[in-house]
Formats: sequence, C-alpha cells, structure tokens
Amino acid sequence: MTLLSSDALEAALRAIGAERYHNLHPFHRLLHDGKLTQAQVQAWALNRYYYQSRIPAKDASLMARLPTADLRREWRSRIVDHDGDAPGQGGIARWLKLAEGVGLDADYVESASGILPGTRFAVDAYVRFVQERPLLEAIASSLTEMFSPTIISERVAGMLQHYDFVNEGTLAYFTPRLSQAPKDVAFALDYVKSHATDTEKQEAVLAALRFKCDVLWSQLDALYFAYLAPGFVPPGCFQPAAV
Amino acid sequence: MTLLSSDALEAALRAIGAERYHNLHPFHRLLHDGKLTQAQVQAWALNRYYYQSRIPAKDASLMARLPTADLRREWRSRIVDHDGDAPGQGGIARWLKLAEGVGLDADYVESASGILPGTRFAVDAYVRFVQERPLLEAIASSLTEMFSPTIISERVAGMLQHYDFVNEGTLAYFTPRLSQAPKDVAFALDYVKSHATDTEKQEAVLAALRFKCDVLWSQLDALYFAYLAPGFVPPGCFQPAAV
Repeated sequence: MTLLSSDALEAALRAIGAERYHNLHPFHRLLHDGKLTQAQVQAWALNRYYYQSRIPAKDASLMARLPTADLRREWRSRIVDHDGDAPGQGGIARWLKLAEGVGLDADYVESASGILPGTRFAVDAYVRFVQERPLLEAIASSLTEMFSPTIISERVAGMLQHYDFVNEGTLAYFTPRLSQAPKDVAFALDYVKSHATDTEKQEAVLAALRFKCDVLWSQLDALYFAYLAPGFVPPGCFQPAAV
Repeated sequence: MTLLSSDALEAALRAIGAERYHNLHPFHRLLHDGKLTQAQVQAWALNRYYYQSRIPAKDASLMARLPTADLRREWRSRIVDHDGDAPGQGGIARWLKLAEGVGLDADYVESASGILPGTRFAVDAYVRFVQERPLLEAIASSLTEMFSPTIISERVAGMLQHYDFVNEGTLAYFTPRLSQAPKDVAFALDYVKSHATDTEKQEAVLAALRFKCDVLWSQLDALYFAYLAPGFVPPGCFQPAAV
C-alpha cells in the first residue's frame, strides 16, 4: 500500500461502506420494505437496544483518552445526544420508546436478558475495540456514521409506509440522528484524515472501519438466523409471542 | 435460589448442558449425520480453528491468577495438551491437520483472515470472560468439557462413516481429547463444587456455564447462517470453492 492523499483516504473509507455497510444486509432490505412481521421487528428493536445502550460507554472510554478539553468537549456531545440531559431524554430513551411502540415491555428490553449471544458478543467487541486500540483507530471505527443518513431516511420512510404498528412517534429516535451524525462525522473524519499520516496508520484506520462494519453486519446475521430463516432461536433468547 | 448441596450443584450444571450444549445445535446434527458438503465441513474446520488457537491464551491468563504451584501445574497440563512439547504436536497442530485433511491451506487457516465475525466475537468474548471474571467463574466456564466426550464419540463415528474425504488421521485431534477432557473436568468440577459455597457464587458458576454454552452455540449459528441456510456469507469471509 502506498501513502494515500487525504482525499484518496476518504474515498477508500467510503468504498468500505459501499461494500460492507449493513444497509446492504438482506435483513435491512426486508425491514425497510415492510416484509417483516411485528414479532421480527420486535426482535430487531430488542437486540438493537443493547447496541444503543452501550454506545455512551464506548464514547466515555474514548473521551477519557482525549488529551484536551476542546477534543473532549467535541466528543462529549455524543454522550449528551445518547444520554440526554434529563430522564426520558436522549437517544437511548428514544430507542426504548421505539421498542415499546412495537409492543415490547420496557423493563424486559432494558434487562437485555433476551438478546441474542451474537448481539452481545458483537457489541461488547466494539466497546473493547474502542477501549484498547490506539485512539486513531478508535475514532476511525465511529466512521460508519458516514453512511447512516441514507439508511435512516430509507428506514423511516419504508417503515412508516409499510407497518401499521409504527408511527412517527415510534421512530422519533431517528430524526435527531440525521443532524447529529453528520456533525459527528465531520469531526471524526477530519481527525482521521489529519492523523493517519503514514501507510501503517492508513491501513489501521481502514481496518478499523472494516471491523466496525463487521460489528453491525454480524448483528443482522444473528437476527436473521434466529427470527427469519432458518429461524432457530438460541436457548434462553426472546421467543416472540404471536403478535 | 437456595443453597444447593454439592451434588445438587453438579446436577444443576449438568442440566445446563442437557439444555444448551452445542451437541443439540442443528449444525452438529447435520455434520455428524453426513449431511454437509465438503465445503461446509471446510467452513466448520476453518472457523473452529480460531477457537482452538485461542484456548491456550485463555488458559494462560487463568493460570496466571492461580495462587499455588500445585494449581498452576494442574492447569498447565491443558496448555501442554494444546500447544504440545514440540512443533507439530498438540491439539492446535492436530486441528490444523484436520483442516488440511478436508482440503484447506494451512497458512490460510492460521491467518484467520477468512473466519466469520460471529466466530471472532464469540471466541474473543470467551477469552475476555476468563481474563476478567472472578477465578471461580473462569474455572466454571471450562465445564462444557463435562459434555464433550459424548459429542466427540458421535462426531468421529459419524464423520468416518459418512464422509469419504475424512479418515482416522484427519480426526486424530479428537482421540486424545477423550482422555484429556475427563481429567480436566475432574479437577475443575471439584474446584467449583468446593468453592461455590454460597448462593451468589452458585448462581455465578451456573451463569458462567450458560455463558460458555452461548459461546459455542453462537459459533454454530454463524456457520449455519453463512454456509447452510439462508447461506449469506458476510463480506470478506471464506467463500468455498466448488469442491
């Protein structure tokens, strides 16, 4: 690998998304096209809640390693976005509303007792990665947000159109993400482009983004396997009632 | 939960295996009954190699926390079993022979570059668990070996009978395991039964064994999803040639 220009590095990062971002996963196609049952949407909301709930832990451990108040303040806004400023506010609370909106019990969702092992292992791997890898790679792993506005627009439009158990209130999680994600990306992408200054670092940030795509993708593999086809729910996991 | 007698605790541990051990997974049924293609057996051997290759790391970090030479010597035998006393010996080398025997390139297998994210995240979760949880839980998580002699006997007999690309040399990994596993279990089970002396510890060792069953089970979920049905191989993972 030869040293990439800043623009070429950004293009290489975007190419990873074009090949590996989870908007390409067959589970999301079905979700957005209205092909899932309410029980399958419940399984998605339940498992994805665990991911949402761990994001501030990931961001806090990253923030702890940032060297200046300027950088920490920048990263802190992600935690504010997720945890809010008061009970019931923030992205996690809004995801809980989504889960309740599709018919799940909030306490059950928060307990994470019914999530798939594949969800837990993937999400925990992400939190560890950010804790343990060099700061540059930890920041690069957040760059899947580059690809999220498209998937969110598709998802909200598709779910509102196709599912009568979903309304705009249920999907309130996503609206703020459309402005939060680009703001977060602008900072992280600039950081990565200005700090990945040799080929080894450039390879490392590309690998970090591939890793993060794997984290998102394998969660959908696990959901599809358990709740669509062949439909083998692992022992102890969420068993949908007939809804 | 009330305090269990030593025998009742052992029975509760065995009941977890009867419900959650991966001999019950549909992937293993198909593997042992000769229902898989050679390419599917390759995918299994390739992914399972990653698990084998990380076991000594798990055991070394556990051994590092054992307080006496007697205990460490006991646990060290597991590492000797896996790593051997010379190149080409030990369980990892024998698993590599298995992988080569079913038609894979050894360098490719050792690189782990084609394994499923679901494999990597599950195996890494196990290694972390043993590093980070109390010693008693770490030891308890090894107790899936209580259930392995049965599955090994089934597997060796079934694979020799059904697959013409498998012979006794290919499956040489398993023969020593039939004596090693019971020896390891005798020590670990005795340790768990004598140290899990209150209800909190008993609940913790039962949870540790459930966790470990999830680690094994979810690896088969990922294999089944990618290589059997629906058969969506995640980006970048092993793509079987027509064999």
